[in-house]
Amino acid sequence: MIPTGDAPAAVCRAAGERLQIEEVVVAPPQRHEVRIKIICTSLCHSDITFWRMKAIPGLFPIILGHEAVGVVESVGEAVQEVAVGDTVLPVFLAECGGCADCRSRRSNECSLFPFAMRMGMLRGDEAARFTDAAGAAVHHCINVSSFVEYTVVDVAHIVKVHKPMPPAVAALLSCGISTGVGGAWKAADVEPGSTVAIFGLGAVGLAAAEGARMQGAGRIIGVDVNPEKFEIGKKFGITDFVNSKEIGDRSISEVIKEMTGGGADYCFECVGLASLMADAFESSRSGWGKTIILGVEKHGSPISVNCREILRGRSIMGAFMGGMKPKTDIPILMEKYIRKELNLDDFITHEVGFEDINKAFELLEEGKSIRCTIWMDR
Amino acid sequence: MIPTGDAPAAVCRAAGERLQIEEVVVAPPQRHEVRIKIICTSLCHSDITFWRMKAIPGLFPIILGHEAVGVVESVGEAVQEVAVGDTVLPVFLAECGGCADCRSRRSNECSLFPFAMRMGMLRGDEAARFTDAAGAAVHHCINVSSFVEYTVVDVAHIVKVHKPMPPAVAALLSCGISTGVGGAWKAADVEPGSTVAIFGLGAVGLAAAEGARMQGAGRIIGVDVNPEKFEIGKKFGITDFVNSKEIGDRSISEVIKEMTGGGADYCFECVGLASLMADAFESSRSGWGKTIILGVEKHGSPISVNCREILRGRSIMGAFMGGMKPKTDIPILMEKYIRKELNLDDFITHEVGFEDINKAFELLEEGKSIRCTIWMDR
Repeated sequence: MIPTGDAPAAVCRAAGERLQIEEVVVAPPQRHEVRIKIICTSLCHSDITFWRMKAIPGLFPIILGHEAVGVVESVGEAVQEVAVGDTVLPVFLAECGGCADCRSRRSNECSLFPFAMRMGMLRGDEAARFTDAAGAAVHHCINVSSFVEYTVVDVAHIVKVHKPMPPAVAALLSCGISTGVGGAWKAADVEPGSTVAIFGLGAVGLAAAEGARMQGAGRIIGVDVNPEKFEIGKKFGITDFVNSKEIGDRSISEVIKEMTGGGADYCFECVGLASLMADAFESSRSGWGKTIILGVEKHGSPISVNCREILRGRSIMGAFMGGMKPKTDIPILMEKYIRKELNLDDFITHEVGFEDINKAFELLEEGKSIRCTIWMDR
Repeated sequence: MIPTGDAPAAVCRAAGERLQIEEVVVAPPQRHEVRIKIICTSLCHSDITFWRMKAIPGLFPIILGHEAVGVVESVGEAVQEVAVGDTVLPVFLAECGGCADCRSRRSNECSLFPFAMRMGMLRGDEAARFTDAAGAAVHHCINVSSFVEYTVVDVAHIVKVHKPMPPAVAALLSCGISTGVGGAWKAADVEPGSTVAIFGLGAVGLAAAEGARMQGAGRIIGVDVNPEKFEIGKKFGITDFVNSKEIGDRSISEVIKEMTGGGADYCFECVGLASLMADAFESSRSGWGKTIILGVEKHGSPISVNCREILRGRSIMGAFMGGMKPKTDIPILMEKYIRKELNLDDFITHEVGFEDINKAFELLEEGKSIRCTIWMDR
């Protein structure tokens, strides 16, 4: 227990600069908050996006990291859901459990605590709980901030790890992998025997494949510019591969339509490019083809599709975290992992100690890692 | 029975020109075809679109009309589904019953006989069954062509009217009204208590309101530029009205979001304007808002929506004829009409005799009629 104390943190002081390990003071949890001793974090591509982001004024200094597992070190007086010593997963999306969205099976975006980029905490004084050596606030990142020995998270963002599972594996479920698996499971509800096309085989795309496999899809076509992704993808159910750099004059949708006899039942966009979203839509089958947008568009471009094509029974949907409700659905995926119905182990390709955190960024930026675990105690 | 014989037809000889009543020769039905004596047709806005259409080469001369009821006069030797004397509804969409789409509950676009603008017949020699006095072919229109005393239709496009109902009412179910009612019922599957916003209160929009009312929607907001549509809309369940010309500097979506506390559960675009489709999408609720495109975009413009907004659990879908399978679902609506669960009578605002068919076009173009019945024998 550190009533208030120093903790090593990997602080990002300016967009794109190497993280610096420094000591920060971590305030005790307020009424609805939980202070967590982080065990490990897996690096998500969104961390790289935030790290590179120059557009948000006053974002820095910040503590990134949001795919983490830790142990509850102390709790605010209103917290009953978890207790000191519990293993927990902080998650960027909240689930209050009581609002219209949390009560509906159709939404996973809590309307009491909607997702926002907050510089501090959700409730209480809403200020940052981190202070640097100069006494300045260090910002939180999407309600988690796990590149630090101790972090403070609102209990609305906490999921209890109620099953014995490796912490590095549990950590995967707080963002990217849940986005993909959930996309196929909760958002699309892929039907057994379906044909699925996945655009972009990063972690989210591979997880969408794994989710489609878990749902019983008959054929899972991966589309990527990197031919090595076919072998990697096979571990997650990919059955066919299209190298989009090697299709000559043909469009991706022509190739997919030819392979599938008219288009895929489900098309997942997992990169975040408006042009690829349009490709995905055009690759979907007339009559019932569903396009599921999982990537966050990198340039803020709109998605644009042919009005007459959508009339032919097609649909487009989007979902944060694959439509998964954190507290309701992550425990179900934990259960599926334990029953060996869900492959999570193969997403972890690298691991580093906390001191080498910048190495994890390099590996992901260079496309060498799917998930690199960053261990706090190594 | 007219083995081959003369029949009066309202022929359109050039885009936008008044229809001329002239005699055409109607060939007997071939193997899979049915020759029907038309009782009446209700004029659909698509007929006006085809009538005005200059873009399709060789479209004229043509016999328009596709919301019709008639009596089977003769059948081809392979036809078993209907017999001479049956009252039937020819429908522009086919349902073969055996293809992957017809067998799926998710699609209404028969993949054996996909929708296309054919100049003649679906099967057989595929030529027109109409010949004018000069011996030239007169084209069919979207597989129906009902502005003629006798027409020939492939049995894949025939729905039997198996219940005693007024022919003018039954005719409504072959296109526009089914598009709206089906949009709320089959495509969107509006949930009881939902909030619905309908963009454009023409026949399709009013029918979408009626479908939403039938499904038990709690609140149905109509959006139109014509304030008279509120009173008319009340007959079909409209509870609130926004005159989109009288909202000052605010956008439609701002107004709808304010009225609904964040956006409607279901938004129906019933005009066919890409900009209105975007308004509808923006008016849909975060978390689960569904936008249903029922209008055929008039200018071929793409629909363009914000990628980040769709990520917040929103979806867009489109459907021809509201996602209704002709042979499966139209009889269900007939049943609902007979049980007084579906208001169809109020869609019929005018009627004319066949000689006055051009008057029906004027009434619809001027926005004076919702549906005008054109009687063959008056």
